[in-house]
Amino acid sequence: MKQIYFGVDIGGTAMKHGVFTPEGDMLDKWEVPTPLEEHGSRILLTVAQEIRRWCGAHGYEMAQLAGVGLGIPGPVRRDGVVERCVNLGWGGVHPASELSALLGGIPVAAANDANAAAMGEYWQGGGKGYESVVFITLGTGVGSGIILDGRMIHGAKGLGGEIGHIIVDPSEPEMCSCGHYGCLNQIASATGIVTRAKRFLAASDAPSALRAAEKLTCKDVFDAAKAGDALAVQAVENCLSFLGKSISDASYTVDPDAFILGGGVAKAGQYLADVTYRYYSDMANLGDGRAQIVLARLGNDAGIYGAAKLAMDCAAQ
Amino acid sequence: MKQIYFGVDIGGTAMKHGVFTPEGDMLDKWEVPTPLEEHGSRILLTVAQEIRRWCGAHGYEMAQLAGVGLGIPGPVRRDGVVERCVNLGWGGVHPASELSALLGGIPVAAANDANAAAMGEYWQGGGKGYESVVFITLGTGVGSGIILDGRMIHGAKGLGGEIGHIIVDPSEPEMCSCGHYGCLNQIASATGIVTRAKRFLAASDAPSALRAAEKLTCKDVFDAAKAGDALAVQAVENCLSFLGKSISDASYTVDPDAFILGGGVAKAGQYLADVTYRYYSDMANLGDGRAQIVLARLGNDAGIYGAAKLAMDCAAQ
Repeated sequence: MKQIYFGVDIGGTAMKHGVFTPEGDMLDKWEVPTPLEEHGSRILLTVAQEIRRWCGAHGYEMAQLAGVGLGIPGPVRRDGVVERCVNLGWGGVHPASELSALLGGIPVAAANDANAAAMGEYWQGGGKGYESVVFITLGTGVGSGIILDGRMIHGAKGLGGEIGHIIVDPSEPEMCSCGHYGCLNQIASATGIVTRAKRFLAASDAPSALRAAEKLTCKDVFDAAKAGDALAVQAVENCLSFLGKSISDASYTVDPDAFILGGGVAKAGQYLADVTYRYYSDMANLGDGRAQIVLARLGNDAGIYGAAKLAMDCAAQ
Repeated sequence: MKQIYFGVDIGGTAMKHGVFTPEGDMLDKWEVPTPLEEHGSRILLTVAQEIRRWCGAHGYEMAQLAGVGLGIPGPVRRDGVVERCVNLGWGGVHPASELSALLGGIPVAAANDANAAAMGEYWQGGGKGYESVVFITLGTGVGSGIILDGRMIHGAKGLGGEIGHIIVDPSEPEMCSCGHYGCLNQIASATGIVTRAKRFLAASDAPSALRAAEKLTCKDVFDAAKAGDALAVQAVENCLSFLGKSISDASYTVDPDAFILGGGVAKAGQYLADVTYRYYSDMANLGDGRAQIVLARLGNDAGIYGAAKLAMDCAAQ
């Protein structure tokens, strides 16, 4: 009787479900809206219903369901408790045990969504073949997850891999959501790169292809930088110098085999990895001890892959 | 038949041996000079001889020897290889398997000495009772080791916990041994605190008790700061602000329950922990998510305790 695992990435808008074989092949995936009403109290009920519905529709018995993993958009404490998740309206929830109870006691694991995505990329994405990775997702903000020797670093309070809030440029004039100035989050995110590009444009009269953009995007900045536009290059180099510094610092802390760059900014491809690596190697005097910098491969599916892998690891214990 | 474990801390001058019960009680400890001649090729032979000698002299049979742990003054790769250890003259040595062969095949584990000390403090010192700790030793340099959920973070290349080489103050005018400027190592070490105190003294005409010191020590600086000497306070606050920043950064990376401060500088006691915590909490907007900052308790014995614990963990596998 073939076993299956579910990976569910619970976001503030949609919940993405994925069904996986023990070998890591994805059999199916789909999304449903996240029911945020009543402090998110219907979220796990809906996940349980979706899982039962899929199994019924595809001829799987519940006995074949070997485990479910959940990615949560907020900190998950080491003991599995979500003390507070603003995006879902949750406070003091233990999602793994609640969902397990709704599904007849099967193994359920829960982790922060960036950590789950890190596990996904480690297992079946850009980190495949490495033993230890740090995944950094560069989107509207900067998220991160750490996998060392196959184990996720949740952290004592669920803050493992929150490197987006490390202050890297105290000269930054705008305040980060955390109340500090100059977090990596504000600089190496898509938002941060656009903000800095606009500042460089405003501070100079030099010609730049970026001046023609109606609504400047991160892609515009990278495209212009790749084409040699001096102001775009300046913005990219400035932002990635701080990313390289953060990678250097993390290298001296957890010393992974590889850093995996994902999120919207990573669509800039190898150019992003190359420029970042230049700053990293400049700052980390490690010779052969330096880690690789590689690109993520699973896109928005990283979370469901990683959640499913967490379910497998949990079921195997 | 009662089992015993040996923990051996191999330094560039002396090798400290400790004998431990499985419960963590130290039965004996002693030191012998490190035989550095012939590229350190007699080091492990000497350790094996010392262990056999002690067992014979104290009525223990070799069958009671359940494991040996080694602390090495250089990086130990994840696979146990010491690629290069300048202090011992080693290149391409696998100390655990070599010593195991010399002792009839018993389990032997090896780790970087700061990592071993971290394990010791975690097991029987200032970190007792916590699940995850970062140990920072502030001596002539800054060393560090990370234990998460009881597991040591060796790192892919043996560089886990090398936070002493994270650049925290790029304005530092002197060069660190690693070739960079402003590593934590240069600022929060005993050496660094004295250097900065001298700079503040030279830059000011203000009176200070420190001006009377013939050869200024780190203890002088802390004693004067505790007594309210303005220039000493300035030096301590400056250096510990960078330590607080590093602790904040590590908190956002691996999120331990506690940071343990050891080494000569930690003789300054609770004052050190309190000032550092003030900067840490200023920089890490984590509320209850913040880690504790505690003092090390085992002094120079941390390494042999930790090496013995590594031996136990290795033997239990």
